[in-house]
Amino acid sequence: MLTSYRAKGQVYHGCLWVLKRLAAIVGAGQTRFGDHPDLSVKELFAEAYREALGSVDKGLDAKKIKALYVGTLGVGGYQIGNVSAALADHVGLRDVAAFRVENACASSSFALLSAVQGILSSQYDVVLVAGVEKMRDMSSDRAKYWLGVSGDTEYERLAGMTFAGHYAIMATRYMHEHSVDKKYLSMIAVKNHYNGSLNPKAQFQKAISLEEALKAPSLAYPLNLYDACPTSDGASVLIVVKAELAKKFTDTPVYVTGFGAGSDTLALHDREDLTGLRATRMAADQAYQLARIKSGDIDFAEVHDCFTIAEIMAYEDLGFAKRGKGWLLADDGSTKLSGRIPVNPSGGLKAKGHPIGATGAAQTYEIFHQLRGTADNPSRQVKGAEMGLSHNVGGSGATATVFIYQR
Amino acid sequence: MLTSYRAKGQVYHGCLWVLKRLAAIVGAGQTRFGDHPDLSVKELFAEAYREALGSVDKGLDAKKIKALYVGTLGVGGYQIGNVSAALADHVGLRDVAAFRVENACASSSFALLSAVQGILSSQYDVVLVAGVEKMRDMSSDRAKYWLGVSGDTEYERLAGMTFAGHYAIMATRYMHEHSVDKKYLSMIAVKNHYNGSLNPKAQFQKAISLEEALKAPSLAYPLNLYDACPTSDGASVLIVVKAELAKKFTDTPVYVTGFGAGSDTLALHDREDLTGLRATRMAADQAYQLARIKSGDIDFAEVHDCFTIAEIMAYEDLGFAKRGKGWLLADDGSTKLSGRIPVNPSGGLKAKGHPIGATGAAQTYEIFHQLRGTADNPSRQVKGAEMGLSHNVGGSGATATVFIYQR
Repeated sequence: MLTSYRAKGQVYHGCLWVLKRLAAIVGAGQTRFGDHPDLSVKELFAEAYREALGSVDKGLDAKKIKALYVGTLGVGGYQIGNVSAALADHVGLRDVAAFRVENACASSSFALLSAVQGILSSQYDVVLVAGVEKMRDMSSDRAKYWLGVSGDTEYERLAGMTFAGHYAIMATRYMHEHSVDKKYLSMIAVKNHYNGSLNPKAQFQKAISLEEALKAPSLAYPLNLYDACPTSDGASVLIVVKAELAKKFTDTPVYVTGFGAGSDTLALHDREDLTGLRATRMAADQAYQLARIKSGDIDFAEVHDCFTIAEIMAYEDLGFAKRGKGWLLADDGSTKLSGRIPVNPSGGLKAKGHPIGATGAAQTYEIFHQLRGTADNPSRQVKGAEMGLSHNVGGSGATATVFIYQR
Repeated sequence: MLTSYRAKGQVYHGCLWVLKRLAAIVGAGQTRFGDHPDLSVKELFAEAYREALGSVDKGLDAKKIKALYVGTLGVGGYQIGNVSAALADHVGLRDVAAFRVENACASSSFALLSAVQGILSSQYDVVLVAGVEKMRDMSSDRAKYWLGVSGDTEYERLAGMTFAGHYAIMATRYMHEHSVDKKYLSMIAVKNHYNGSLNPKAQFQKAISLEEALKAPSLAYPLNLYDACPTSDGASVLIVVKAELAKKFTDTPVYVTGFGAGSDTLALHDREDLTGLRATRMAADQAYQLARIKSGDIDFAEVHDCFTIAEIMAYEDLGFAKRGKGWLLADDGSTKLSGRIPVNPSGGLKAKGHPIGATGAAQTYEIFHQLRGTADNPSRQVKGAEMGLSHNVGGSGATATVFIYQR
């Protein structure tokens, strides 16, 4: 891992290195992801909010919070609307600008992006970013509909395409172009299930064998049940402050030093290639440029593994591997907890769970603790990490965000 | 109207007056609001987008657009999701950060707020703000549900409260506290219908008499059909740029010089009073302070008149009249087109229509043309206006925005 030469004021990539602090995370909370039949959206949010407030080392008077950015997909799915105002109201935040940001599966990372921009615009010093979703009490038809509308409707959803179908098309194309066996997809599932088994907030805390992963019931060839993330309930909350104020709240803030957002067509047939996501590459380019780093500088990452193939494509789109070579990282252990660049130490969407709107902020929650060395379970602490990356995808790749974080 | 002493560099309120340009509007488009059974959400957006692009005096290469902020309530109401990416895709915008912002009836004004913050954060030079909604092809039960969830659910909606019911409660309390007759509410309807009769983009282009307004069928006492805005289809688009770049696109930009966002409880029974909206007062205070002006400096305004009582409360909450005295402005003609401070020259939500997500950006569309002196119909041009205000409310007052605009 890269270490001290990146310290502020050192020469790096031939230039004087000055850490570019765009905003700071000083607190974070997350419910366990999974099945919460007894908790409403408001209660899930409140639980994560209380943890986030309590995690601010030097304390935070909630009255200082001036904006709330909530990422959630499911309005109507849980009977309440005006969601951001409703959640602010529920926890007694009276003086906030309340925004709901919805970008399908990337809702709360776009909420974080708006929040960072709100801070950079000098409008707010302290803001809350939240993600929340309740999917487990929907009928599967309804869940399929809510996910389905995040892809193309006219040519895909109404023709019967499912989300597993989208990624199955990308997987078959990838396997064909690069002569890759399906077992490399399953290796991602095995790794992420192992990581999830160590994470007390993961939906699946159960390691699986490669054999089990390969034998699971098929969803859409080549993807089977263990290639797919589950439906989940959950919430995540971040406390984001102006970088210059961070030390008032904690001696160990985590800084956002880069971010980017990309887009692409919704329909797969309009894309130039199916073996990667243009939106991710666009977001990563912006983020690396803003942080003035290269992909090789990243110590670990939380990436969007809604299906196992998505994680392999992310390796390539984020620059961790060359095009067509991402599957090798699944094979050689580079992205395991103990590897060169651990990916999805939390268990990822695959094992931690994927409550749509909550996922982006939960990736940041994981990175916050990993960079501070405060992972709940020491056995899953990434050692000596200084620079993390989160990557969140909306729908079947029509939008994506990438964030860079540094201690 | 206040004029030249507000010119840049002049002494004003005892201080040196420097126009604070936060962002600039250089183009705007709007579909006619009303019934569009033949146009999809994508097509409505595209129509407003084409008008907006075409309205940029010196031209704009669409490739310069780096972000799209879409305000809309109705995901699911029109079968498509990932809406911001979908709309970008539909008009061929490939390199944008696409955000959907949803704050009930204030969705596109919160989208504008995020966009201005995006510009102020130095992330974007040229962005698009859009509002879009398609309500007319919903069943009335479904429309009632989508509106209903924007108010409180646990204590109000599920107990049978409707949106007309919310505002009827505010109206009866207002009438009781200030001994006001219902006819003053109807005067708002008469004024706004007259303004709508001159606006080729209004849903109702038909003047009504006070007698007609008073005799309309009751909705929820004291509000009747002519006290309520209609359900509408429509779209609106703004082109917003960094203030310093505005003159590259037009010699007559409209600058955003102040903005604010406020919040309140969703449930009416939790509020301190029912005769005004705290969220509006909070947003207005912020906006006036940021623009360094007072309410008396505003030449004209577009305010949120979902029901006639809402416009009277807005007069007071925005400081155009003292508490309890707003109804007098309805009576003395101050807010007519030819009055001291014209309000809702467009016809307002009442007559122009209220396609939920499209309303906020459409208010800005009206102000853009009024401040440039390019109202489509010269008979409704507000004369010599230099400073405009827009006011947009989410739900029954849980959120609100206020923007200040100057030539």
